[in-house]
Amino acid sequence: MKADILSIGHELLMGELTDSNAAWIATRLPRLGISLNQISIVGDDIHRLVETMSLALSRSDIVITTGGLGPTQDDLTREAVAQVLEEKPSVQVEIVKQLEEYFQSRGQVMPKTNIKQAQLIPSAQFIPNKYGTAPGWWSEKHGKTIINLPGPPGEMNPLWLEQIEPQLRQKTTGEITITRTIKTLGMSEGRIDEILTEHFGQINPYLGIYSKQDGIHLRIISKGDTEKEALDLLTPMEKSITSQLSEYIWGYDTDTPAQSCYQLLRQQNLTVSTWDACTGGMLSDLITQIPSHDVFYKGGLITGQADTEHLGLHDNNVPADARINQQTATDMAKLIKKEMGSDLGIGIIGETEPSNNTTVQSANLHISIVGPNTISEIPINVPARRITIKRRAANTALIELAKLLG
Amino acid sequence: MKADILSIGHELLMGELTDSNAAWIATRLPRLGISLNQISIVGDDIHRLVETMSLALSRSDIVITTGGLGPTQDDLTREAVAQVLEEKPSVQVEIVKQLEEYFQSRGQVMPKTNIKQAQLIPSAQFIPNKYGTAPGWWSEKHGKTIINLPGPPGEMNPLWLEQIEPQLRQKTTGEITITRTIKTLGMSEGRIDEILTEHFGQINPYLGIYSKQDGIHLRIISKGDTEKEALDLLTPMEKSITSQLSEYIWGYDTDTPAQSCYQLLRQQNLTVSTWDACTGGMLSDLITQIPSHDVFYKGGLITGQADTEHLGLHDNNVPADARINQQTATDMAKLIKKEMGSDLGIGIIGETEPSNNTTVQSANLHISIVGPNTISEIPINVPARRITIKRRAANTALIELAKLLG
Repeated sequence: MKADILSIGHELLMGELTDSNAAWIATRLPRLGISLNQISIVGDDIHRLVETMSLALSRSDIVITTGGLGPTQDDLTREAVAQVLEEKPSVQVEIVKQLEEYFQSRGQVMPKTNIKQAQLIPSAQFIPNKYGTAPGWWSEKHGKTIINLPGPPGEMNPLWLEQIEPQLRQKTTGEITITRTIKTLGMSEGRIDEILTEHFGQINPYLGIYSKQDGIHLRIISKGDTEKEALDLLTPMEKSITSQLSEYIWGYDTDTPAQSCYQLLRQQNLTVSTWDACTGGMLSDLITQIPSHDVFYKGGLITGQADTEHLGLHDNNVPADARINQQTATDMAKLIKKEMGSDLGIGIIGETEPSNNTTVQSANLHISIVGPNTISEIPINVPARRITIKRRAANTALIELAKLLG
Repeated sequence: MKADILSIGHELLMGELTDSNAAWIATRLPRLGISLNQISIVGDDIHRLVETMSLALSRSDIVITTGGLGPTQDDLTREAVAQVLEEKPSVQVEIVKQLEEYFQSRGQVMPKTNIKQAQLIPSAQFIPNKYGTAPGWWSEKHGKTIINLPGPPGEMNPLWLEQIEPQLRQKTTGEITITRTIKTLGMSEGRIDEILTEHFGQINPYLGIYSKQDGIHLRIISKGDTEKEALDLLTPMEKSITSQLSEYIWGYDTDTPAQSCYQLLRQQNLTVSTWDACTGGMLSDLITQIPSHDVFYKGGLITGQADTEHLGLHDNNVPADARINQQTATDMAKLIKKEMGSDLGIGIIGETEPSNNTTVQSANLHISIVGPNTISEIPINVPARRITIKRRAANTALIELAKLLG
């Protein structure tokens, strides 16, 4: 089965809001056996809405829209569906009552404009919405399906998971697609390409290779009439890849470097602290995005590259430039580990500003991880753009920690 | 003039990547007198690409695409433009040379596949790209314009600003839209609404009000045949608003809290350091996203709320819970200021984890800013979700610093 997604709203065309709904829905479709034809972002303009919806309906079995279900004159999604399906909407008394109760429960009186949200056409059913005032519409006509959902992700996402996905799963008979992403760091894209050459070029399962901020990702996509059939195709390739790249693999699917570290640190009951003279706090920020980070992250110090004299690291007068090296990173890791009383310490130092010398295309960074009995020193080289340096350095420090513990 | 934007790439339809390019370009169009008809996200499928591009070209004067300019077989944007304009691409020798030099400067040999990027059709000119290997195309035919830009924002954004916008500015003749965003913190949306009631409800200039992570934003949108005409409408409203909300305003337009702080700290030749027992490094991360942060940011300490005994803050055995208060924040600010040798110190402490008590809807945070002769203590209350707490706390600390210095 084929689908089109329409994201509706003037503010999306003004760039005031970046549409995240379409991408979110897009991730949910393959495992339902639905493939996506196109995403369209349209303003609150009835003519453009009707045109785009008709076109989408002509090429797809299912058209999913988000937005434009509010109570104002700008909210035209219902009107567009009615025009496309050539039906006339009428107000449903029981829904008016529900809306009135919704406002009452909040100590408010329902504005008259909200009555608009209680309209329905004969081919549509309401999608009840306990997360807001706008019920969705599910319309079926001439073998085609139109699903209209509210725009706020806080309403759209649970409605999708609770009501839309179970119904679509029963409806679709198409091919099931499953994917598995294997995340590596430390081996070049070219070398991986060579090692896995036998797997590339197949169609089902299909293997893709992608260079990302946190290393080289391999993605297997397999298709089958059932989930089991797809999985039976995927598993042997996954096993082959994991055995060949084992020591370079740090995570799977939606794993982030911080999550991988968290799982390993918790399993081994270890704590870590950081001295960061490179990422300006991004390293700590990534770690503390994990729930319950308090149990494994003891905190850290952020300094400039030239300010490593803090906590007595440098007694002598070594010039600042000469301190940007691997030995300093190791000294920093040792000292912060001691100061914070953690099992592991991470020290990271390097050039964070693009050099004035424009011929310099990359920056040298030094990461050291000091454990109870081990010292790992990891020099890395990254493209010399500020945001790239920060992100690469922070991710690499975490991935190296995960690989060390794994 | 009317435009369509096409974002191209299979990974956008799989939801693996959320398109941010279209929204970014959308924000740049109004001041050029260009209004946006539609954004379409299409996969790497030549048939769908040609169909969507033709349709976009039929309704718009300008079609802007991002993505699909890479060297692989999946990159089909050039092929689609050639088909839509019914022209045949041919390899341009001088561009092949430039590509070879690009790879040479990185100590690499150009893969054969990259020759594809040196192709051109008669109606197109190259858009040189010093940020990557993929040059863009600018095509003109039958009074229509197609602009093809690479997908990575690190390449697309500077190419747009340096090459596309100056050319489009000369080309367009439509109504000019200009906007001015005024960013405030500390006054409620309802109170602002009351104070500015005379300005709401007008059509040109139009005033909008938005609640954001970094406070309440007011946006004025004005339209005119010339930039001056639009500006003459906008300026009186801006002056009225700034005089009425003056002490609550911390920035304008694309200002971030960190940028506002940076400008003020540089003007006054002051440095700052942070002790962060709340945002887990996000505060430092925001500050160090500013170029040359080394000159005003001396670094800081990140600890858990219960770990404030570091650096000798607590000699006595105060229970950890009792330390989460305003006095601790002030003590932290004083100590980090002294330790780092900065002119100002920021201390921030508060509950960062959502409480197990589900009736607790908000978290209390304590921000203190200690200067050479001043102590500012700012208690704030934010919705109790982890990412919200971190972001609100980090932004508020910076905004309060900016308001203090401003």
